Order: sequence, then C-alpha cells, then structure tokens
Amino acid sequence: MYPIHFRENSSLRVPYDELFEVLLSVLLKHGFEQQRARLCARLFAEASCDGVYSHGLNRFPQFIRMIRGGVVAVGAEPRLVASFGSLERWDGRSGPGNLNAHHCMERAISLSRERGIGCVALANTNHWMRGGSYGWQAADAGVIGICWTNTLPNLPPWGASDPRVGNNPLIIAVPRKKGHVVLDMAMSQFSYGALASYRLRGEQLPVDGGFDVTGRLTRDPAAIETSKRPLPIGYWKGSGLALMLDMVAALLSGGSATFQIPAEPERETKLSQLFIAIAPHTLGQNESADKLTDQILDFLHSPAPASGERVRYPGERTLQTRKENLQNGVPVEPTIWRELQTLI
Amino acid sequence: MYPIHFRENSSLRVPYDELFEVLLSVLLKHGFEQQRARLCARLFAEASCDGVYSHGLNRFPQFIRMIRGGVVAVGAEPRLVASFGSLERWDGRSGPGNLNAHHCMERAISLSRERGIGCVALANTNHWMRGGSYGWQAADAGVIGICWTNTLPNLPPWGASDPRVGNNPLIIAVPRKKGHVVLDMAMSQFSYGALASYRLRGEQLPVDGGFDVTGRLTRDPAAIETSKRPLPIGYWKGSGLALMLDMVAALLSGGSATFQIPAEPERETKLSQLFIAIAPHTLGQNESADKLTDQILDFLHSPAPASGERVRYPGERTLQTRKENLQNGVPVEPTIWRELQTLI
Repeated sequence: MYPIHFRENSSLRVPYDELFEVLLSVLLKHGFEQQRARLCARLFAEASCDGVYSHGLNRFPQFIRMIRGGVVAVGAEPRLVASFGSLERWDGRSGPGNLNAHHCMERAISLSRERGIGCVALANTNHWMRGGSYGWQAADAGVIGICWTNTLPNLPPWGASDPRVGNNPLIIAVPRKKGHVVLDMAMSQFSYGALASYRLRGEQLPVDGGFDVTGRLTRDPAAIETSKRPLPIGYWKGSGLALMLDMVAALLSGGSATFQIPAEPERETKLSQLFIAIAPHTLGQNESADKLTDQILDFLHSPAPASGERVRYPGERTLQTRKENLQNGVPVEPTIWRELQTLI
Repeated sequence: MYPIHFRENSSLRVPYDELFEVLLSVLLKHGFEQQRARLCARLFAEASCDGVYSHGLNRFPQFIRMIRGGVVAVGAEPRLVASFGSLERWDGRSGPGNLNAHHCMERAISLSRERGIGCVALANTNHWMRGGSYGWQAADAGVIGICWTNTLPNLPPWGASDPRVGNNPLIIAVPRKKGHVVLDMAMSQFSYGALASYRLRGEQLPVDGGFDVTGRLTRDPAAIETSKRPLPIGYWKGSGLALMLDMVAALLSGGSATFQIPAEPERETKLSQLFIAIAPHTLGQNESADKLTDQILDFLHSPAPASGERVRYPGERTLQTRKENLQNGVPVEPTIWRELQTLI
C-alpha cells in the first residue's frame, strides 16, 4: 500500500546466485550442516531479493555475531514438546530463528492438510528475520498462513513513554495463482530501519511516526530515534494488538513473554511464535476461489474518480522488486558485502 | 488503552434486568422463538452493559427495522455446509447476526476442546453487533478466541478516497481468572459513532482521524463525517489488514467479500466471518499460565518514571464499566428507550 521497503542507496548489485553462495559459504564455515545451511542462506538471500534488505543481508552480520556470542545454537533442531489434535507445541532450543520458524510453518501446513487447520506454537527460538518468509511459504504450499512472533520490549504502549510491549510482526498470507497476497506488518508505524532511511535521505516522515523527547508527536525521524518512542499503529489500537500477540504466543508455546526477553538486540532470544495454516481446499475444491481473490484486488485497484494513483495490495510491490532484483542483481550494502568476504 | 467507549450523555439509567426484559419482549413480538430471543436480548443488553452502547441498545431499532425489511430472517438457523477435521464451513442463511456468530464461536470452542484448535467460517450472515461478545464468550469458556467479520465497503484504503475495504473488526481474547483480556478493534482509527460523540461534545479528536474534503489529515470529527474518509489505523498498515481479513473470511466461508456487500447500512447483509478457538489446556494443565498473563499485565501497568498515568490493557475498562452499570443501571438513550416501549 505504501513504499515501506527502501531501496539501498548503493549502486552495487550482485546476482542472486552469488549472494546465496557467499551466504552459504559463511554458514558452512560456522558449523551449519549442509542442508540447513542451504535453507538458512536461501531465507536470507530471498529477503534481500524481495526488497526486505533490513532482514536479509543487512541483518546477516549480526546473526553471525549472535552465533559467535553463543546466543544462536547452530546445530539445535526444534523438538516436539506436546501435541493434541491440530495443535502442537515445539521447543526451538535456541536454534537459528529462520530455520525453526520455517520448520514450524511446515508442520502447520502439514497439519492443515490432514485436519483443515494446523497451529504450531514455538518457544525458545531466535529472531526469525523476515516474518513474511513464512507467509510466502504457506501461500506457496497453497494454504492460508497466519503467524506472528514476540520480540524484546522495544515499543512504548499507548500512555507510556518506556518500552513495555514488543514491535511484534503479524503476517497473513493468501495464496493466489497470479501472485500471493502477503501482509507483513510490525506494530510500530515505522521501523527503526525505516526511520534511519528517512533521516539519511534528509526527509521528514509522511505521517507522524512517534514522539520527540518532550512527548510531542513528530514527523522528524531523528527525533524519534533519540526519544526511542516510535508510535504503535493506530495509537492505542496497535498497542493493544501488540500485547495480545505476545500473550497468545507465550501462553500457547509455554515460552517467554516480551517482558522476559533480554532488552538488548544482540542478546534478544527465547522468543515465542505462533504459526497457523488453514487449507481451504480441504472443504472441497473451489474453482472460484482464485477468481474471488482477483475480484477483491480488482475492486481495490479500481481507479478513483479524483486520483490517478493506484492502490497497492500487500505483497504487490514485493513481486515487482523480486523480479527486478532477479533480473538486475540484488542491491547490497557495499560495506556489508565486503565484510561478508572476510567471513568466508 | 484509551477511552473509545463513550458514556451516554443521558442521565437515564435502567436496571440490567429491565433492559433485558424489554428487549426480550420486543424480540418475542417479532417472531423469535423463546430461547433464541433470550440469547439475542442478552447479547444486546450485555453490549450496552459493557459500555458498547453503539452496538447494544442504540443499534436495536435498526436491527428491528432490518427484520421488518426482510434483511434479517428471524427464524433462520445456521447450517453446516462442509467440514474437515478442525475446520468447518457454515451457512448463516440470513439469520440474526449475533445468534449466528454466537453459534459459530460455540462450535469453534467445541472443536478446540476435541482437537486443540477449531476454526469455523460463516457465510451469509448479518451484522454481529458487538464483535467483542464472541471474544468474551471464548474466554468465559477458558479458551483463546480470535474472530473477525467483513463489512460493507465503508473505508477508503490508503491511497484512495472512496471506500473499497471494510472497517472489519478483529477480536482477540485471552482467558484470565482476574478478568479476561479482550481486544475488540475495527480498522478505522475512529468509528462513525466515536466521530459523532466528539462532534456533539464540541471536541477535536486527540489524534488525526481522517481526511477533510480537500484531502488533508484532520482532527475535526465533522470534517471526516462530511468527507466520509476516516483513516485506517496505521494508514497503509490497517488498510492492508482490512483487506486480508475480508479475503480470508470470504475464501474460507465461500461467501461474499466486501465488494459484493450492499453499501447501504440497512441493506448490509451476506457477511462473511471467521471464528477460531484455541484450547491451551489440551497441551497439558499449566498452572503458571494465569500467572504469566498477570505478569504480562503487571509489566504493562508498571508506573512510568515521568507520568503517573496508568496504561490500560484491552478489556480493562470493560470490566469497570460492567460493574458500574450493573450497580447503577445501564445508561440508555431516552429517545431510543421510549421508542422501544412502542415496539412491545
């Protein structure tokens, strides 16, 4: 609906395959087993390729530091703890967050095929990087995917100036032949990554994005970086939604809630996540499902009388960016790309 | 988190039981079978009692008009259309929206007890009145409840000035011994009911609530009522979320999407809804679950260094209002209360 994924300013682009191979080499050097290294590298590379640079290559050096720091256990595989019908609880055992998340969405997808809907709660995991990955994963499998994670306390709830809820991303994905519809949104109006991008470009935010140190709403990205008071979406509404996502994920996984998660980004661990998959086709093949989805998007896209601008659906820009980056190479931050070469 | 439920300005309060009995009499006179009339009256009375006046008594006259106009079929009971494992599809057959919704959440609760999670999609239903009712229902049953509905097109998505998405409410409820935590939020920053309340009190909105006719963001409630351009929560984010909720509900129920729903409020029908219940106790009794929920709320409530104000959790104000209204009587709009007497 709005350009929330920023192009890198850099002019450096590398072919997708090269990006993947370099990430793979670094992971293998850090003790990943071959198959897990490939999946982990793919998830990082795809995030960058889809334009989510902040949770692709740009996050990779921190991921490696967290492995070296003992926060992420390279070889730990998730373990089933409890199960009842379509509901499962898994222990992430401090393994790599994207591998754990991918595994649990895969379990939810399997459950949904066997039982219509599947729900997998995951405790003791690490940052899942790009949440949208698991939405695309479900949609690629032809099912509806809904998932979310909690985070460290990094967002002041409405009415407070200090962080007491997490900027928990919520993902909802619907499969579609012409391109999946995938919403991937966190609870703050702008991420810190987005704030930095605006500041570096010398631009004000298009709408209020948080409070300055005096408690006034502001569009100045630097003022919000200083105050550490980004705004929850919809003020009190996003604040309440962030709380609920944390509560449900922690209760069902039997894991930690936001208040129990270390508040330093490089020590953020023991996250709780929830993965839901729903398989519409289990209720009977419905040829008109794809037609309905297209019609919903056509209605969204119908030109306005006054404006010539096109309204976008969630995921629409992702497909454009992916195509562009596969053709022209994936934009990489030169300093991070160089840093990567030293890690091989 | 914020006062979104407005007290009636009226000084007229009636005891809960009297409110219930009057609603019951009107429903019986309109052809409701005894038991269905009692449940329908209770859901309306409880909405007002909990402070959601706009979807309690204040909405009742319109409900009666829609029965008389043939939109709501008093005697129609929902019918199971398809079922697979923990997933069911029901046809609401144009029955009373709150009875259909209550029935489907009850089914989801039963499924969750048998299979950990239950998901019920409902098509061809009518306005469910207060969405929070079904969240409280799930929480009262000791399970986590998640539900949403689509609506007629009444919200311009981000980037458009005409309504192409619905102001779809999303409810998430977590059971808790000391009082359930229940989020009940629609996708617009302020409902039309809230805008009217601010206007009548001669107040500006506390934050931007929409666009004026020239396309400028404004805090003037009257300007938004005129432009019919309320703001989605989080701008592009709530706009995307509204789209996803519509898409998922319509696809799973096999019913109508927002673009297919008549755009006049008193002809709004054929809604699609989704009800999910998750039973944490099926994974094993967990004595610490309630403790964790309390700790999450304690952390939310912890006093800020700078401000003395208390942050509220979703549902906290509801419990206060309910207690107050049960003690002192439920505030009613005198004109509506008098209108009701003529319907008996």
